[in-house]
Amino acid sequence: MPRPAVPRDLDAFFDANARRLRAGLDDFLRIPSVSAKAEHAADVARAAEWLARELTAVGVPAEVIGTAGHPIVLAEWRDAGPDAPTVLIYGHYDVQPAEPLELWTSPAFEPTERDGKLFARGAVDDKGQLWLHVKALEAHLTVRGRLPVNVIVLAEGEEEVGSEHLAQFIAEHAERLRADAVVISDSAMFAPGIPSILFALRGLAYFQLDVQGPVSDLHSGMYGGAVVNPAMALARILATFHDADGRVAIPGFYADVREWGTRERDSLRGLPFDEERFRAGVGAPALGGEAGRTVLERLWARPTCEVNGLLSGYTGEGAKTVLPAKAMAKVSCRLVPDQTPADIEAKLAAHIAAVAPPGVTVTVTHLHGGMPWKAELAGPAFDAAERALEAAFGRAPVCTGEGGSIPVVGDFQRLLGAPVVLMGFGLPGENAHAPDEWIAIENVEKGMRACATFLEFVAQAR
Amino acid sequence: MPRPAVPRDLDAFFDANARRLRAGLDDFLRIPSVSAKAEHAADVARAAEWLARELTAVGVPAEVIGTAGHPIVLAEWRDAGPDAPTVLIYGHYDVQPAEPLELWTSPAFEPTERDGKLFARGAVDDKGQLWLHVKALEAHLTVRGRLPVNVIVLAEGEEEVGSEHLAQFIAEHAERLRADAVVISDSAMFAPGIPSILFALRGLAYFQLDVQGPVSDLHSGMYGGAVVNPAMALARILATFHDADGRVAIPGFYADVREWGTRERDSLRGLPFDEERFRAGVGAPALGGEAGRTVLERLWARPTCEVNGLLSGYTGEGAKTVLPAKAMAKVSCRLVPDQTPADIEAKLAAHIAAVAPPGVTVTVTHLHGGMPWKAELAGPAFDAAERALEAAFGRAPVCTGEGGSIPVVGDFQRLLGAPVVLMGFGLPGENAHAPDEWIAIENVEKGMRACATFLEFVAQAR
Repeated sequence: MPRPAVPRDLDAFFDANARRLRAGLDDFLRIPSVSAKAEHAADVARAAEWLARELTAVGVPAEVIGTAGHPIVLAEWRDAGPDAPTVLIYGHYDVQPAEPLELWTSPAFEPTERDGKLFARGAVDDKGQLWLHVKALEAHLTVRGRLPVNVIVLAEGEEEVGSEHLAQFIAEHAERLRADAVVISDSAMFAPGIPSILFALRGLAYFQLDVQGPVSDLHSGMYGGAVVNPAMALARILATFHDADGRVAIPGFYADVREWGTRERDSLRGLPFDEERFRAGVGAPALGGEAGRTVLERLWARPTCEVNGLLSGYTGEGAKTVLPAKAMAKVSCRLVPDQTPADIEAKLAAHIAAVAPPGVTVTVTHLHGGMPWKAELAGPAFDAAERALEAAFGRAPVCTGEGGSIPVVGDFQRLLGAPVVLMGFGLPGENAHAPDEWIAIENVEKGMRACATFLEFVAQAR
Repeated sequence: MPRPAVPRDLDAFFDANARRLRAGLDDFLRIPSVSAKAEHAADVARAAEWLARELTAVGVPAEVIGTAGHPIVLAEWRDAGPDAPTVLIYGHYDVQPAEPLELWTSPAFEPTERDGKLFARGAVDDKGQLWLHVKALEAHLTVRGRLPVNVIVLAEGEEEVGSEHLAQFIAEHAERLRADAVVISDSAMFAPGIPSILFALRGLAYFQLDVQGPVSDLHSGMYGGAVVNPAMALARILATFHDADGRVAIPGFYADVREWGTRERDSLRGLPFDEERFRAGVGAPALGGEAGRTVLERLWARPTCEVNGLLSGYTGEGAKTVLPAKAMAKVSCRLVPDQTPADIEAKLAAHIAAVAPPGVTVTVTHLHGGMPWKAELAGPAFDAAERALEAAFGRAPVCTGEGGSIPVVGDFQRLLGAPVVLMGFGLPGENAHAPDEWIAIENVEKGMRACATFLEFVAQAR
């Protein structure tokens, strides 16, 4: 198969309009659409209006739909006909707060180019990446007067505050949002010059463990040795969570773990990843984790059980001889398909009940959960993304995972039943939630081309 | 051997003077000699002067000796001659703060009798008990014009704030304080009607463990599974401190533990102790500790290793997905003879070095320590105390231990080389450091007799 290419007419459009297109992005980035801060509510609304006008002007009629929180922008172009596939493009137009402002080299809401990077709050997360898709639509509609597929653009203004109203919106508009594929550009490439498809996200099951011993704190001299110490009991319980090989030892924990297939494992092995450099970046004397697995497997393909917090007794300066009445741990498990938070909660609770010593009462509270997600490395949408990225970047993309969670991905897959393709154009060190956020200019140029070519290849796959 | 008896002339003195003696105690208790509060410094000095005048009036010339803190009262009567034994009576005339004042049924510094108890701050800890000895001296000197032994009274005003200047005072005046026995009444009887000699005090070695992993907190999704979690590492380290039988599993921990002898163990078995009532008082669902030992053995005869505090990562409401950079535990060991804080520190540090996982750095800091102490249940002073208590209370005393520490006891034994007899007249629930502190009137009456008879029997033992 010959190397795929960006269609010449689209490529020429991006060449010819580069300066104008970038000016539009700057306008978008200048709106301080900080969803977390009440004083920016009007700015968030202004960004939604700006985006809807832009989409409509491009030729994809858009409306701004209110929610109980910030509005959703919904745009549709359905003239490809009932037999053509429908692609849903998701992004978010809200941004993280810019504080601390004094750590920005140039003002957060004044887009500035330096060293091949465009600096601004939202440059990569996610206004800049959402804008790549808008410009891809503009290229098709300007050059050819039509899109190769039916397109829905769904942009929310609450991603940085938990997407509180999105799942309900999707559920209520499931018919209207029905699509053959969802494409999201809100992630990072593995490294510069290496286009990436993010195909695995871990889920989460977050618990609080409360261990109660005596009814009140006791003097450790007067009572120590005859009363079960809740802090020690907690430590002994936590120590049963892993075996000597770093595997989670909660019975049944791995029962529903789907091992990665050959292609998925191969995609990991092909990545240029330096474990020693990773260790040095973390600053720990050595790395750890499940024996017999690489660092990337441990981070992307394997579930975990971590302690996120500990509290008991006296924690101030010096010595206080207290036998604490209680001890608390925050414990969370990162999950992989097909683990579920509910099942892991049941297994954790059963394990704790089995290992907790007499003399204490242990309560397990489930605080927060999210489903893991993994895409098939196959299918028309995946193939189209893979070929479009190769066309735009001149090399085949790698497939990557991410240790954290993006709950909205699972929502789309669950509520719409459509495959989700995560095709991101950020880079490591992009400061997505920190001062001096940036996106590489090269990735802006190539990203627009990849997004435009993606639509073309989705249409051809039919 | 016939049951020992309080000498008739001394007994008659206490009967005849009961009201007058009690009035003197009330005067002593009215002085708010709170050593912890700067605003009471003059009251502390006034109490020292009051006590010195009282001792001198009784016939034991006393002086008030300044220290860098509160003064020491030193009184001496040495007319029993060079061949007679010398008894050093130690007590303290300072008291705990009385706050919260609103929880006192009657004012803290207005001694009040109710239900056979005398309520006041210092009634039992330790003005009241010190006063028993002063009145014992008065009985001898009034009735007979002499004491049966040479006597030194040493009363400090800093016991409730750590006896900061006492050890140095004892060391500097070792020649003058040389004695054949030290007697201290600053403890409690096992139960009402059961006179008690406290013969075992545990020591202490208190540590802080700091576990450092990565240089800063990490996102538990992005890094979890490949980086050693310091909180989990700490839990795994703490879990190695005991075996399944509740024994401390730090290698060599029991190497220097002197097992109690037959008589000591028998003294424990004879005590009317209800383990279920103890458990109910603690409020825990079950008791714990070293297998094959009774609760009283665990509390008095056996060393422990306890967690006094835990802190790591996120401890607030809800969920935060942090992989903590560090974790801290306060850990303390209660020691029994012949364990020492320095040796236990070395063994703990070596054990931690052996079990700590790679990927974290563990620091052990020794915060505080104190030597354990145990008296021989034999010798002239012990025999005299045992018989004097039987004479005063009508039944042989029991021998008890105490899980906590009284550092001054070890100081006397170490610096003066004299056996220490702890003959206390408090009772469980006496509120020594709480509102409504009290001493039983019955124990005041019998305690004076016991103290006077003790001096008599020490003299006879020669």
